[in-house]
Amino acid sequence: MTDPVIDLNADLGEGFGRWSLTDDDSLLSVVTSANVACGFHAGDPSTMRRVCDLAAERGVAVGAQVSYRDLAGFGRRSMDVPPDELAAEIAYQIGALEVFARAAGARVTYVKPHGALYNRCVHDEEQAAAVIEGVRLAGGPYPVLGLPGSRLHEAAEDAGLDVVAEAFADRAYTAAGTLVPRREAGAVITDPDAVVKRSVALAREATVTSLGGEVVRVRARSLCLHGDTPGAAALARRVRAELEAAGVRVAAFA
Amino acid sequence: MTDPVIDLNADLGEGFGRWSLTDDDSLLSVVTSANVACGFHAGDPSTMRRVCDLAAERGVAVGAQVSYRDLAGFGRRSMDVPPDELAAEIAYQIGALEVFARAAGARVTYVKPHGALYNRCVHDEEQAAAVIEGVRLAGGPYPVLGLPGSRLHEAAEDAGLDVVAEAFADRAYTAAGTLVPRREAGAVITDPDAVVKRSVALAREATVTSLGGEVVRVRARSLCLHGDTPGAAALARRVRAELEAAGVRVAAFA
Amino acid sequence: MTDPVIDLNADLGEGFGRWSLTDDDSLLSVVTSANVACGFHAGDPSTMRRVCDLAAERGVAVGAQVSYRDLAGFGRRSMDVPPDELAAEIAYQIGALEVFARAAGARVTYVKPHGALYNRCVHDEEQAAAVIEGVRLAGGPYPVLGLPGSRLHEAAEDAGLDVVAEAFADRAYTAAGTLVPRREAGAVITDPDAVVKRSVALAREATVTSLGGEVVRVRARSLCLHGDTPGAAALARRVRAELEAAGVRVAAFA
Amino acid sequence: MTDPVIDLNADLGEGFGRWSLTDDDSLLSVVTSANVACGFHAGDPSTMRRVCDLAAERGVAVGAQVSYRDLAGFGRRSMDVPPDELAAEIAYQIGALEVFARAAGARVTYVKPHGALYNRCVHDEEQAAAVIEGVRLAGGPYPVLGLPGSRLHEAAEDAGLDVVAEAFADRAYTAAGTLVPRREAGAVITDPDAVVKRSVALAREATVTSLGGEVVRVRARSLCLHGDTPGAAALARRVRAELEAAGVRVAAFA
Repeated sequence: MTDPVIDLNADLGEGFGRWSLTDDDSLLSVVTSANVACGFHAGDPSTMRRVCDLAAERGVAVGAQVSYRDLAGFGRRSMDVPPDELAAEIAYQIGALEVFARAAGARVTYVKPHGALYNRCVHDEEQAAAVIEGVRLAGGPYPVLGLPGSRLHEAAEDAGLDVVAEAFADRAYTAAGTLVPRREAGAVITDPDAVVKRSVALAREATVTSLGGEVVRVRARSLCLHGDTPGAAALARRVRAELEAAGVRVAAFA
Repeated sequence: MTDPVIDLNADLGEGFGRWSLTDDDSLLSVVTSANVACGFHAGDPSTMRRVCDLAAERGVAVGAQVSYRDLAGFGRRSMDVPPDELAAEIAYQIGALEVFARAAGARVTYVKPHGALYNRCVHDEEQAAAVIEGVRLAGGPYPVLGLPGSRLHEAAEDAGLDVVAEAFADRAYTAAGTLVPRREAGAVITDPDAVVKRSVALAREATVTSLGGEVVRVRARSLCLHGDTPGAAALARRVRAELEAAGVRVAAFA
Repeated sequence: MTDPVIDLNADLGEGFGRWSLTDDDSLLSVVTSANVACGFHAGDPSTMRRVCDLAAERGVAVGAQVSYRDLAGFGRRSMDVPPDELAAEIAYQIGALEVFARAAGARVTYVKPHGALYNRCVHDEEQAAAVIEGVRLAGGPYPVLGLPGSRLHEAAEDAGLDVVAEAFADRAYTAAGTLVPRREAGAVITDPDAVVKRSVALAREATVTSLGGEVVRVRARSLCLHGDTPGAAALARRVRAELEAAGVRVAAFA
Repeated sequence: MTDPVIDLNADLGEGFGRWSLTDDDSLLSVVTSANVACGFHAGDPSTMRRVCDLAAERGVAVGAQVSYRDLAGFGRRSMDVPPDELAAEIAYQIGALEVFARAAGARVTYVKPHGALYNRCVHDEEQAAAVIEGVRLAGGPYPVLGLPGSRLHEAAEDAGLDVVAEAFADRAYTAAGTLVPRREAGAVITDPDAVVKRSVALAREATVTSLGGEVVRVRARSLCLHGDTPGAAALARRVRAELEAAGVRVAAFA
């Protein structure tokens, strides 16, 4: 039997200085976990502070959304960073965010890699280990939010850290329960009704209907909602309402 | 009677990536307090980690050398940063360094502004208050190392933080006990013998001979040694040896 | 008699990587001069290329909107950059933009400082001279768009460069014909009807009604329209339509 | 018969702000081609200006040493930059350097990728094509200095650009005439006498002795000298003296 409790996480604070991107205020009234950008792909200190204050006020868990150092590419360009450098960069970002979380009366309660680093750590053992070394350096111990079966989760478990699996209601899955690569047709679900329905199935039944039509088992403690598209906040609100209407408790994992 | 104890502080970790500047290893065997660059004017995460590890191993106190965000100008260009932004930037830097201090089994035990920010906070009340707001945000409570009588020290005291006064053995003083501005002739003492002699007078007698020849009272708990010039480490070693030979105990304030 | 011809300029290409700000496409169908961000306060190379291509296609003049190096502060924080460094930074930006202008079959035809640099060069002789030294280094010879009576225009004239005066239809003026500082009440005109009316008076009569109610003479060859506010493009279109309806020819100065 | 003329190129201007790395002044009295860093991995505008001035004064050819945008990693970390972005970034760098070359009375006369971009463009067709698209955008037409047989040279030839082959006197070669990867034992020749001897063989005979001992044909119009190691300038002077003593004319290709 599936435990009818789910976390909703979203990337927040992804502006930088004059530029804003995510509708932080609206999303912080829906999600239960905020993946806060830490300054390497987005997220200036003032924004980090504001998001932490608001998250703490509303009881939303604060996570460090760590990234390659790449403002120009928004952390979406895979980089061959030597493991030692990468570990130190990860720790640096977590430490910087921790200050604002604590100042708000909260704590950083998990870590999630962003963009190209997230994707690379699904398969790249060396970088996954470096990220986990960075998490370990930062103290914590911080649970690691990511894709089930990823090298990142393996490395976290090897280091004795908790792992939290997430699923994507707006992404197509294969029959093997893995994500259909973005470059393939049908990889992204754009129909809001479908996203809502899949969210409920993932949370209540731990299943998703694959691109080929099979019902596949996908266990996740958290659903990732996207925050940087128009209508993101409205869709997030619908997802949460339907989950609750379906008897799913929406609560942070941390 | 002057308490014959003095701290020696120096700016360290002031490289960035491929570039190095300060002779961290040598200076960490002389100084008692390391002002570690935190990434805004210098100091990449790997360097921060290495300096913290070495400082902790040798019992050198770790301080956050916070700066304007200005890698291209090495933090030497005064900037009109709005107070809220500046406070958040200061807290960010302290938090990032704290991670590496703790990972090394130590703690950040003080804060010292760098370069243009240091100079500006001597006179600029608004920026001084913003820096102290950043220090307060970062938790701590961190003592603030700086110039006696500066707006920075006033703001720190107003916020209930400890202040630590520093003096410069290689800078000329006025009869009023303030620094002769760098642009004036004779502002910088380059003769190593003079620097050593002035160090001992500052530490033992709390006095310095002014540019005009008067013996002036300058109370300081710490002497700032410069680490980015050729011969810096050798001069630092001489200063320390002569201080100890003169019966001054060299010890961190933190 | 006032020559009934006016240029409309706006800041464009002020995004960076994932972030966008100005509605470049819409504004490029209204303005006659595009102040293109060159990468120091905003403006990544891909955006610079796209804006130049579109500007060239539509016959809009391309100007280099040069700035302090300050992505985090969007170039709005005054910086004490030494003159030699500032001159080289200005030349660097112009050269980078020139590549994209030429690739589009056009040329950079003027230079305009951005944000804090613009404001500082109204009064600061040293920085104004450094900017002009940078413009001179870059070859050109580029006309300099700016505030009449500014140190920037004086330095440009001393260097034998053409100067082009601009006025602001959405800013209040003093009886002396200078801008009312932004921090003062009534400094910014937010009523669209007033902005349109003032645009016509500036273009047709070379006059503006001051905050105190006097009709003041303000000669300008260009009006600066703001591109980073909601409704900016719509207002710009109205301004242009009313100017043309009032018999003013809207044409680039370059 | 081998044409007894060779160019000597070195990476120069690889400091940034307060940090310096390459001994630009010494090397500019030895080499015939200066690969000038353009600000993305190193090279602030003031340094670019100074190196261009000195190069022009001494008749050294100025080339654009273009890189990934990666100051923290000194351009040594391979990055998955989308082709359009990469092309624009390359053009931006060339344009910025061109300003300083022209101000010095010279011109940018070739382009050479730096570090990870250089290595990646040996094999990666997509990035090689993007670099060449950037070179083409920048006008020129600029010859492309690189490894013979690289994807970069293929793409340059496809675009109708001249290619210039370089060899490395301090790197081991395979029997097939390709470089032994750095991670393999013996990949780098550190003995100065050997470097000098190999330089002469490469320039006079177009041959190199491979790691396995075979004499291999390697045709190159330019030898790359390294400028960022202690003794770099002294070794460069020896290489040049021995080449000239052996009857080789040392001259830029551009």
